[in-house]
Formats: sequence, structure tokens, C-alpha cells
Amino acid sequence: MSRPSRYDILFEPIEIGPRTMKNRFYQTPHCTGFGDVFPGGNAHHRAMKAEGGWAVVNTEATTIAPEYDWAGQMTNSRIWDDDDVRNWSLLVEKAHEHGALAGIQLHAGGGFLTAFDSRMPGRHVSDRLEEGGWLGSVIKMDKRDIREVQRQYVAAAQRAKRAGFDIINVWGGESAPLPVQFLMNLHNDRTDEYGGPLENRARFWLETLEQVKEEVDDIVLAARFCIDSLHGDDRGIRVDEEGVGFIELADHLVDFWDVQVGGEHAELWIKDAGPSRFYPENFQAEYVKKIRPHTKKPIIGVGRFTSPDVMVEVIKSGQQDIIGAARPSIADPFIPRKIEEGRFDDIRECIGCNVCVSRVNANWHLICTQNSAAGEEYRRGWNPEVIPLSRKQDRNVLVIGAGPAGMECATVLGKRGLENVHLVDSADDIGGHVRWISGLPGMGAWGRVTDWRKTQLAKLDNVQVITNTTLTPQEAYEYGADVVVVAIGAEWLGTGINGVTHTEIPGVDSSRPDVLTPEQLLRDGKPVPGRTVTVYDMEGYFMGPSIAEKLQREGHEVTLLTRFGHPGPYMDLTGENVHMRPLLEELGVTVVAEHVLATYEGGKVVADDHVAEGRTRSWDADAIVLCTQRRARTDYFKSLRDLHEEAGDSSEIQAVYQIGDCVAPRMLLADAVFDGARLAREIDEENPAVPLPWIRERRLMGATDETYAAVLNRPEGR
Amino acid sequence: MSRPSRYDILFEPIEIGPRTMKNRFYQTPHCTGFGDVFPGGNAHHRAMKAEGGWAVVNTEATTIAPEYDWAGQMTNSRIWDDDDVRNWSLLVEKAHEHGALAGIQLHAGGGFLTAFDSRMPGRHVSDRLEEGGWLGSVIKMDKRDIREVQRQYVAAAQRAKRAGFDIINVWGGESAPLPVQFLMNLHNDRTDEYGGPLENRARFWLETLEQVKEEVDDIVLAARFCIDSLHGDDRGIRVDEEGVGFIELADHLVDFWDVQVGGEHAELWIKDAGPSRFYPENFQAEYVKKIRPHTKKPIIGVGRFTSPDVMVEVIKSGQQDIIGAARPSIADPFIPRKIEEGRFDDIRECIGCNVCVSRVNANWHLICTQNSAAGEEYRRGWNPEVIPLSRKQDRNVLVIGAGPAGMECATVLGKRGLENVHLVDSADDIGGHVRWISGLPGMGAWGRVTDWRKTQLAKLDNVQVITNTTLTPQEAYEYGADVVVVAIGAEWLGTGINGVTHTEIPGVDSSRPDVLTPEQLLRDGKPVPGRTVTVYDMEGYFMGPSIAEKLQREGHEVTLLTRFGHPGPYMDLTGENVHMRPLLEELGVTVVAEHVLATYEGGKVVADDHVAEGRTRSWDADAIVLCTQRRARTDYFKSLRDLHEEAGDSSEIQAVYQIGDCVAPRMLLADAVFDGARLAREIDEENPAVPLPWIRERRLMGATDETYAAVLNRPEGR
Repeated sequence: MSRPSRYDILFEPIEIGPRTMKNRFYQTPHCTGFGDVFPGGNAHHRAMKAEGGWAVVNTEATTIAPEYDWAGQMTNSRIWDDDDVRNWSLLVEKAHEHGALAGIQLHAGGGFLTAFDSRMPGRHVSDRLEEGGWLGSVIKMDKRDIREVQRQYVAAAQRAKRAGFDIINVWGGESAPLPVQFLMNLHNDRTDEYGGPLENRARFWLETLEQVKEEVDDIVLAARFCIDSLHGDDRGIRVDEEGVGFIELADHLVDFWDVQVGGEHAELWIKDAGPSRFYPENFQAEYVKKIRPHTKKPIIGVGRFTSPDVMVEVIKSGQQDIIGAARPSIADPFIPRKIEEGRFDDIRECIGCNVCVSRVNANWHLICTQNSAAGEEYRRGWNPEVIPLSRKQDRNVLVIGAGPAGMECATVLGKRGLENVHLVDSADDIGGHVRWISGLPGMGAWGRVTDWRKTQLAKLDNVQVITNTTLTPQEAYEYGADVVVVAIGAEWLGTGINGVTHTEIPGVDSSRPDVLTPEQLLRDGKPVPGRTVTVYDMEGYFMGPSIAEKLQREGHEVTLLTRFGHPGPYMDLTGENVHMRPLLEELGVTVVAEHVLATYEGGKVVADDHVAEGRTRSWDADAIVLCTQRRARTDYFKSLRDLHEEAGDSSEIQAVYQIGDCVAPRMLLADAVFDGARLAREIDEENPAVPLPWIRERRLMGATDETYAAVLNRPEGR
Repeated sequence: MSRPSRYDILFEPIEIGPRTMKNRFYQTPHCTGFGDVFPGGNAHHRAMKAEGGWAVVNTEATTIAPEYDWAGQMTNSRIWDDDDVRNWSLLVEKAHEHGALAGIQLHAGGGFLTAFDSRMPGRHVSDRLEEGGWLGSVIKMDKRDIREVQRQYVAAAQRAKRAGFDIINVWGGESAPLPVQFLMNLHNDRTDEYGGPLENRARFWLETLEQVKEEVDDIVLAARFCIDSLHGDDRGIRVDEEGVGFIELADHLVDFWDVQVGGEHAELWIKDAGPSRFYPENFQAEYVKKIRPHTKKPIIGVGRFTSPDVMVEVIKSGQQDIIGAARPSIADPFIPRKIEEGRFDDIRECIGCNVCVSRVNANWHLICTQNSAAGEEYRRGWNPEVIPLSRKQDRNVLVIGAGPAGMECATVLGKRGLENVHLVDSADDIGGHVRWISGLPGMGAWGRVTDWRKTQLAKLDNVQVITNTTLTPQEAYEYGADVVVVAIGAEWLGTGINGVTHTEIPGVDSSRPDVLTPEQLLRDGKPVPGRTVTVYDMEGYFMGPSIAEKLQREGHEVTLLTRFGHPGPYMDLTGENVHMRPLLEELGVTVVAEHVLATYEGGKVVADDHVAEGRTRSWDADAIVLCTQRRARTDYFKSLRDLHEEAGDSSEIQAVYQIGDCVAPRMLLADAVFDGARLAREIDEENPAVPLPWIRERRLMGATDETYAAVLNRPEGR
């Protein structure tokens, strides 16, 4: 199948300074969490995008010198020294192998730093702390400092050039680094020639770009720019003022404009990485369109682009020239190639859940709900598209349960060429709990987890999807399969058992009409009696808050009770709470935080203070919804395993495995999907039940001590 | 000077199974945050204690297999494979060089895990989540699982043996790992032979100890044990029940008892690492004393021991046989040697601030307020006691300002043998802001930062401390020094400028009687008018909450306003908030969280909701105390630098430097102290103003690829 010609525009090469992009797909800089200690993971994650057809792959924000250290927080990417050059050159080499250009985003953090590693203050526009940088400390630069910082940029750009990077991006995006902070009145209170009118506030960035351009030849020079910081007033970047204003001032210096909106601390940044619950595709269009009249250079914009038609439209309409993407490139690094080949329905669309972001915020590397290979490219050598055929294809596999793990497992097994794969589910369609989760307010895009797998399964002749079918363990055992995989999931407990008290809660019993579990409410349609409802969030993710939202919207008066500091703290990590918490407040949901449910008897909720022991609060509720914890459905697998093992050599089956939430309930869909993929990818191994070791990147003593000889032999050293 | 004989008891050797401890000093296992990626840092941190005379040094909790992975949280120490063995062997080798035994604490986390790296559920006593493990997921073990986990312990012990460890500790402390969780009713709801009566609940741990003992010969076997989890009821370990009960059951298996109290999630764990504000020295005595009648083996207990007399007393009284310590060994790794040599006043006493803990909780390696070399042993090659003489001793140095940075700098310069060091301060005593900080409720022990340095300075003939003396920059320039170091600190702003709004706040002006800065209140004695006071915490550490505590105790009616989710969030990391928050509630302080001060006019506080935009709250206050942010006193250094540079070759001085809070205000005393040490240690370098590069441990590509060949060449690999 080849693509219709209307998509050809996406594959027209475009010049960016001294280089040419082979097509219009540009992976914007984004965090991976691999930092400077997992260089292989970083390189191979980017390399996968290069393999998938992106014309440009970029690093994340990469600090240029120790004083911008943000160790322990978010990513920790660096180009401080020659060893960093050595590690980055792997990324560049891999990108070039696949015909992609490699870009580096140079970062000097101003007020954003932790200094855990460097133990140094950072040089900043002012001496005022930054909201997101309260752990660090800052120095207000004098002119000498400005020159020194600019020299740091040049030196870092020279190192980047030595590592082989094609594009040097002097970052001023997300309103986090110095160049854009100089532009902002919020930060810039200077009275010298670097403060005041826009020309002055732009001076630092302009000079830095000039110096890099002069001193580092034969590179593409870029300036990722936050064209509107969404502060909504003159504290920040306003597209019509500082946005187009700086573009006019710097247009002669850069080879293209990579632009985005939203910046600064979490509240604004998440408006750039907009979660699907609150932002549609191409949500930055109104801002990006405004810069066209002010530049002669190609424009790159973002907007969680996954639709080829939208991509064509934004280019044809003149909104932008190049498709920028971060999250869509994580969910599917092969988008360009799939569009090029006209394989539109193979595109693994980003669901906008921001789990990638959450893991980075939790100080580890990214993962992805849709793409189980994301983050695993180097560690486990996984490629989301190039899935090796099994060495033992002549097997029939029965997968029981078509939730996230089962669907993924059957899909991967199908691609590995297993002779017959049957995916059986008792429901009338596949998807498992994704079916009813995606019915929660704003969570429709999460249904893509099912949609993509349904499409893939339909294309695999060796996989048969069988719905409306319930098999007992005995029936599964006798089904005729060589291998049985159990993937029947978990269910919410209706007794109140939870991770704090560990006990059932007096009065809590979901067989009563006024006590409900999420499944009863959302899947089974159990009615919520009365007007006042308490939702109990002990999980910490979306379930409690989303049910509260839904019920309040439906006319109930909802109290959201949680043991955490506020409901759904995992959504602090995904960024969704930036919107979810004000939304709940706006809807009128009452939040009782840091309390633990003691009893629910006679329509009265009693909750214990979880901070100050001995205090309680109580209120009336006609009903309670329990998001306490889930329990895995473990018995089925054990029955089947017993049948298999008791039969010994005469067993009807060769093996039985379990995956996903029936092993243990995972808070993230991503981990259940991963578990299905993991088993399928390792199904030929001696014991597929236990994951193969993965590459753990770390320093190995003895291997590289000579590198540190200069430090070790210092007079101050030992 | 030699020690009086009453301390000899601390240096009597003691047998622990097949090995002998050379004295009674045992560094209990404690987190360092170096994890598995910074093996050099970990080894050298422990090695310093060995050098300082500890008879035993231990690792932290070291996970035995991937399923107990807690990547991204706290420490991430592992003994999963042969590469870990290779890295750990460096620690062992270093310990042995100094005549210390090396112990490893084997950890299987049950409900405590993140699984960010492994992406696997953990095997647990029950299938109930653990409060501190809400990011992970768990499997309730069947008997097959129990056997497999026990085999993991044995295999890890065998690896530990290969790395050379002398002591294998099957950890059941802090009520976090499986062995102790089996003992606890909170976790153990089993109906098989591993649940029910104590004998059953002890079975898992006893069997595990037996198996390790049988299969790994010639090692010391230990079981660090939480003898009371402080739950206060039958959910946890009660010293009189499970505590002495398990000790009786396992006494024949272990070679000593390393015991502590407090465990489980943060609320209880901090009762083990008790901060000085809430716990005196030897605070675990009442529990430890109870176990003596139930064991024939040596007892090790902890209690933030820093006093040699207390140490002697706890041994002579029979409370315990060996002095266990974690924090005191960080603050002073040389305690044993100092006591041995009778150098009591050289002991650098732990101040109990728990900053070591805070950095580990923030996902980086430990640092220390008292010991600026802590965590820097390998990275920078620093030894807190063996400080190399300067190569250029014939210099006179003037240090201006005797706060944390200045005191430390003068002390280290003195030890480096500089000819004349003058430490000058305008106040009547040294200490800087430590003087008034240590006057806050419960913070007396923080004064040790000054005490220790005062003692050291008094011993250094080449250092002169000059108080009650104010020098202008001109006077400093003409003082006769070769090198001038400016360390004059920072001060709290009285205008309301802060990291969120970045602006002054209408009505806020500390020249008014009803608006106060911390210095005005605590140092200058400015009176607080009226009864109602609002304290504004925008810093996030102790200042706001402690002032609120103080003023409420003094009879004011205090409202504590903060932009954070609750006051002083940095004290979540130190653990102090476990006590501070309930204390404030008990005292009757009103907390208004997640709000930002808008105006303070006409005795009325107006605050904007920082989560839901557009909402405000207001209340009356007779006065307001501003803990918004500090500003460095930068002008002095710049004046002096100008004098020096303008004079060119004819300058009166060779160089001028600045250190500590006058460079940029540091939230942690530890970082100001460090800055003073850093300059003094690098004073001979070409440009001491810029820190020398330190060792950044990371994987270097190309160096060790062959190690990963097996994984890279996998069929599933690429």
C-alpha cells in the first residue's frame, strides 16, 4: 500500500541552514529520564525515532555547566565534559545511521536548579528564587557573569559539535532557561542594558546566539522558543509582544523556529504537554499561527499530532512548516514511516495520559502506555515494530482475557508468527477495564489502547479473537492449546481493605446498595442512592477524582476523602492535577485530605486525621464509593497450573503463564501492557515466567578508573 | 593525650561468631543515596568510617533481586548480579585495609517497592498494598513463592560472600522488609503455617536464617531487628511480645542482635532516625534494655550516640554491648579513633538535623551539616580529618564573617597550615545566624555547628578569632592580608519579594512595627504587636513553622500561611514534619496552605488560592512575619574586588573570594559550611573561585560494552 499523494507534502525535504531535513518530522526535545548515567538508554530511545523516519531527533534539555545542575529532579542530562561528549556521540552515530539529523538542546537553568551534585548556586537574571527552584539558590548576574555564561554556551556548543550534533539549540522554551527568563518581566528586574525594553531583555539571548554562530561553524543554529508562556499578563511571554518581537529580532540568527506555548513552573508547563483529558490535538494552533508574518524561517510547532490529515492541514494552511512532536514520537517512533507507506491504521496514537512525563518526574526513565517498547529499546533491546519471529512458531497459544495485558500479548505473539493464537474474553468486546475507564469524563482517548490493538489483531491471520466466551480452568486446560496465558485482571475490593489500616472497615460492604466499587458504578451500572456521596481515594491516581467529577456532574453532592495531601497525587506527576484539582473545586466537590476512613455506619462517615493522631471528622453520606485497592484474580491461574502439574508428562499443555493485573494489580495501564509484551517477547526462553536480565547501566569499578586519574592524583585527593 | 581508662571498655574486642570486632563501634546500615550507579562514592564513604576506627561498617538495605526494586525512591542499592559483586568488592577491600569488618544488609521489600526499573510486582506476605509502597504492586506468596524468595536470599548471600563481606544481615529492621512484615499482624493475614501464632509468623525469617547459615559458611550471620515498631498496638512489633519472642526463637541462629525501634512508613521510621528537636541521645534505651534477659548474644543498639560517657554507660549498665550509630558516623567518621586517643573535644557531634536523610529522600547522595566532607570522600577525595597542608603556607588570610561558611573556611585554612588566618566578625561571638537559629524551640543542638568550630579554632595557633570588629571594604583591603575571603551572609527580605509573585507585596514593609523579618524577631528582639500574627512560609523549611511554634507558645494566635501543600515541606524530607505538623495542630496554629499573600493592609491579610485561580481568602492579623526569601549581601565583595582589580599589579592583596550565603543564600546550613570548606581545600588552585571538577560516576560508553554482550546478542535483542 502506498500513500495518497495528498500526504506527499509531509515528505518534502526542507533546508535548515547548512543541513537538509529529509522530511517534515521533527522530534522536539523531550525528557527521557535517562540522564547522564544511562547513556545507552538515551541513545537507543532516540535512535528508534530515527529508524522510524523522523528527520530530526533531539536530546532533552542538556545542562551546559555544573552550576545548572538539577540532579535528583527530572532529567539530568549534561554536556559538561569530554566524557559526556563520548557518551553523546553514541546518540549522534545512531541517528546518522538512520539518516536523521541530531540536535542538542543547550540548557542554562537560571532559577531552576537543585545543585545537589554541584553544590553551587546558579547564575540568574535576578536574585529572586524561582517557584520551581526553591531547593536551589541563585546569584544575580553582573556583566562579567553574563560574559562567563555566554562563554559556557559557546564551550558547550563546541563540545556538542565534537560529539557530532548537527543542530545546536540555544534553548529558550518552557520559560525555564536563562534566555527566555531574560525576556520575562517576572524574572527580569534589571536596570542595565539587559533589562527594560524588549530590545534590552532580548540582548542576552541575541548575543549568545551570535557568539555560538561565530565560534561554531557548520552547524544548524536553533532557538526553541516559548512564544507564549500563558501567564496571561505582562509577567510572562505574550505572543503578540515578546513572542513576535523576539522572533523579529533573532530571525537572522536562527535557521528555524521550534516554538511552543506554556512554560515556567508545573502549572504552565503542563499547558505545553497538555494531557488529552483537557487538550485536543493541535491545541497550540492559535499561537503558532501568529508568528508566520514575522519570520522568513521554517516554523516547527507541536500539538500532540497523531493524525496525518491534521499534519497535512497544518502545513498546507501555513500554520507551520514542520511537524514537531514529543509524546506522539514516544507512543509511536515509526509515525513518519507508517505515513510514508500509507499504513495509517498502524499508527499507535498517543493517548495523552502523560505517563511518560510521570515517570520522568518520579526520577526514572520514561515508559509509555501505548508503546510497551518505549524506554526498553536499549535495556531490553526492544523495537516496537521489528519484532523477531519466534524460534518455535509451531505452537498454539490460548490467551484468556482481552484486557490491556492480554490484548498486547496476543498482538505480539501474532507478530512473532505463532501458529495459532486465540484471544478469548467473556465480554462482548475486547478491552477489559479500558472499556469502562475510557468512559470517565474526558478519558475517551484512553480507548486508543484498545483501538490500536483491535486493528492489529484483525490484520493477523494467525490470531483469532473470541468474545462472549467464558472458559473454566478445566476447559482452558482441554482447549487444545500448547501454551495458556491467563490475563483475567483484577477487581476493586468492596470491603474497605486498604494500604493504611490493612483491615476491612466497619459498615463497608459493597453488597449493600449504598456502598459501591468502581466496577459496580462504571461497568455494572449500580445506581448511587441519594444525593450526598463520599468517594474514598486511597489509590492516589485518577479513579477517585474522576468518579468524584462524574458524580458531581450528575447532580450528586460529592465529598472526596483521601489519605494523601490531596486527591490523586500521581496526577501531580502526570501534570493532570494542574487542571483536575481546580476543576473539582469549581464543580463544588468537597475535599477532605489526609484523613482515613474509620467507619461508615448509619449513613455517617467517620474519618481519622492521618497527620495528627486522635482527631476525627464526620459527615453524612447517602452512599460511598471505594477506591481503596484492587485484588488480583489469582485462583484461575493456580487451578490451571495445578491441572498441568498434576498431569505431569501427560499434561494437555506445555506451559501456563499469567500476565498483567491477575498477577498483581498495576496502578498504570502501561505496566499491564508491558507485562503482556514481555511474556510474548520472551516466550521462547527457558522460563518465560521470569524476565530475562536487562542491561543495567552503571559504572563498573575498575573499568574506567584511568579516566579519573587527574582527580585522584590531585593534592587534595587521596 | 591518652584516654582515661574508664573508656577502655569501648575498645575491648568482642567475638561475633567466626569474627572478632576490634572494638565496640558498629556503623549500622544506613542509606547513602549512592545506590548502584555510584559505587565509588558508596565504598569511599564507608571506607572513611573504617579509617576512623569503626570495627564494622555496613552497606544500606541492599535488594537481593529485581522484584524488590525501588528505583527512583530513596537508595537503590543492589546485589543482583556479578557486576554488583564487582562493585561491592571495592567497599569490602577498603574496609579491610583499615582493619574493619564489612557487613551487608540484605533486603527483600515485600510491600515496599516502586518497580520502576524491574517493572515487576513484588512478592509479599499479603496481597494488601503498603502505605509507603503505593506506587508498586504486590503478590501474596504461596509456599512455592516462599521457597523461591528464600533461595533468593541464599543466592544473594553467596554473592555477598564472593564480594568478601564478613557479615550477612538478613534484614528485619524498620519493619520494612519481608522477615519483619511476616511477624506483624498488620501485614500477616495468613492462615497457613506462616500466619497466626508468633511461632508461625516467625517461620519465614527463621527458615531464611537457617538456609543462609547452612549454605554460606564462614560468615557472621545477623538479623537487624525492629524490636518495637511503635505502632502502639498489636498491628506492629511490640517489644514485650514479638520483640523478645522472636529474639528467643532466633537466638541460636544469629551471631549478634542489631536492634532498633520504629519502622514502617515515614511516620514510624523517623522515630528511629529521631531528629534532635524531638529526641534526646539514647532515646531507644527503654526498649533495648528489655531484650537483655532473652539473648545470649551481643546486643547492638542505636540512639544518636555522640557522648563517650553515654557510650560507656550504656555498655556498663548492660543495656547493650556495642555502640551502633548511623548519623553520628556521618557527622564524624573518626569518633572511635578520637575517643581512643582521648581527643574528646575533637568529636564533631551530629546535630540531629537529618539533612543526611533529606538528601537521600530527595534522590541524591547524603551530605552533612557538621561534616562537610560527608558524601565528598570519593567525588572530591575529601577526608574530614586528614587535611593536606597547603603548598603555599606563607600567606595571611582574612576571613570576614564568622557564620557557618566563614567558621568552616577559617578552620580548614588553619588545618592546612596557612601562616596567619584572621577570622573577623562584627558580633560579640562567632556563629553568625546559627546563633539565633539555635534559639528556636528545640533547636539547641544546632549550636554544635558553632561549638565544634570554636573548639577547633581555639586549638589552631595560626588562626586568630577577632569579634566585635567591623571592617569596611577599604579597611579589609588594607588589612595586611594576602587573601581576603568574604563570608558576610544574607538577610531575610522585608518587602515580601518571593519566588511566586516575584514582587513586593502591598502593605508589606518591615520598617513598620507590624511587619517583621526573622532577624528582626529573633536576633534584634523587635516586639510582635497585638495578639493575632500571620507567619508567611514561602521558603519551605523550618523557619516559618518554628516561628509559628514559638509565637503560639508565647501566647499569640498564629496563622501559618504557605504556598506549599503544607508548611515546611523540606521537613518531609528530613522527617521532622512527622512531629512538627501535629505539634502545630496541637498548639492551635491555624494553617492556610496553597495560598499566596496578596496584600497586608489595614491589619487584613488577603491571600490568593494558588491551586484554583481567582479565589481568595482573608483574615485579620495584628502582625505578619515574613519568611519569604533571603538576599545575599553581595556589595561588600564587589567593592573589595573593585579595589583589588583597580589597583592592578600594585594591589595590596593577591586575591579576594566570597563564600556561603553572601554568594547566594543556601536553604541548608550544610551547603554554606560546604562552601567554606571547598574554598579552603582548593585555595592553592589556579582559580579557587571555581570548584575543581569532581568525579562524576556514570557509565562511559565503549568502556564496558563487552559486559553486556550476552544481552545484546539475544534473539530478542537488536
